[in-house]
Amino acid sequence: MAYVTADMNISLDGYVAGPRQSASAPFGEGLSDAITTWMFDAADENAAELAEITGADAYIMGRNMFGPDRGPFDLDWQGWWGPEPPYHAPVFVLSHHERDALALDGTTFTFVTGGIREALRLAEETAGDGRIDIAGGAQTVNQYLAAGLVDELRVHIAPVILGGGARLLEGVEGTLLEPIGGRVASTVAHLRYRIVR
Amino acid sequence: MAYVTADMNISLDGYVAGPRQSASAPFGEGLSDAITTWMFDAADENAAELAEITGADAYIMGRNMFGPDRGPFDLDWQGWWGPEPPYHAPVFVLSHHERDALALDGTTFTFVTGGIREALRLAEETAGDGRIDIAGGAQTVNQYLAAGLVDELRVHIAPVILGGGARLLEGVEGTLLEPIGGRVASTVAHLRYRIVR
Repeated sequence: MAYVTADMNISLDGYVAGPRQSASAPFGEGLSDAITTWMFDAADENAAELAEITGADAYIMGRNMFGPDRGPFDLDWQGWWGPEPPYHAPVFVLSHHERDALALDGTTFTFVTGGIREALRLAEETAGDGRIDIAGGAQTVNQYLAAGLVDELRVHIAPVILGGGARLLEGVEGTLLEPIGGRVASTVAHLRYRIVR
Repeated sequence: MAYVTADMNISLDGYVAGPRQSASAPFGEGLSDAITTWMFDAADENAAELAEITGADAYIMGRNMFGPDRGPFDLDWQGWWGPEPPYHAPVFVLSHHERDALALDGTTFTFVTGGIREALRLAEETAGDGRIDIAGGAQTVNQYLAAGLVDELRVHIAPVILGGGARLLEGVEGTLLEPIGGRVASTVAHLRYRIVR
């Protein structure tokens, strides 16, 4: 059976993105770019954590994590990442609209309209006993946490207070966590928890 | 001039206490006692951080941090801590109601009705060039942060998701932080930030 992780960049006040996300501001307005700064400006220092984020055997993400458009898909949009997405594994995108699978440089995006359990079933078929990572966004991770389908939560806390936007850990109250490691790096704090069911 | 810190225990989702705080449940209902577990069950491992929390030259706290009663003071109530409060320094309690100062085993509680700047001025008179700690609760720390009166924020993140209650870091959006250390202990993560004004 696969091991399910959720790996999220958050602000100190728990937001994964600021208000008013758009194609030109995928993490929203304000200081929200600070959430991902560590991945680019301190990649060497955080190489181990970056390798873990991109080392899963399959990924699941919400549609907003794939693109800014809503409703029927804009087929010209091929994801936020350009021609070389960082996943290099099957990615299952939750959506209310159908779309044919999209293969880009070793990453295949499969669009799933059957809900979070159906996406997990498809990911398990490809991951086997490996690892499935719930890659975001906040609403998707919150849904999987609330359904008790996540084994391990990994948060990467950026040094910024956003005060609004898409918030992680909503709708999952009363959850005890077992700390299983992490470290404080110079511009980000990595915390790892097993979910106690 | 004094150095102003704010030292807070929070859940991973940013609450300092759960819903429905009362005299018999000072941290609220549910799993909220987990917020302070590290201070008692892992005191040796976290001795350095505990020493810093109790090592300030003066403290400021909101009234709810002093007691559960509201309105005019119940003079029989002498704080949550019994006859030996852990502060051993002047403590300034923000309140809308007057009360004579209360001295208990080296800790003197002075009740301040003039607002957060007046409490800070009084604390500075006693702390000199030392350290003033804003001891809580969430609303009080949020007010000092929003007013730009805090030099350093220290959060101690407990492994629990509360989902409701008194939330730290509300009303202070758009604040950049400079990480200045911290560490991941076995049951709590200590993170320290300088507030970038």
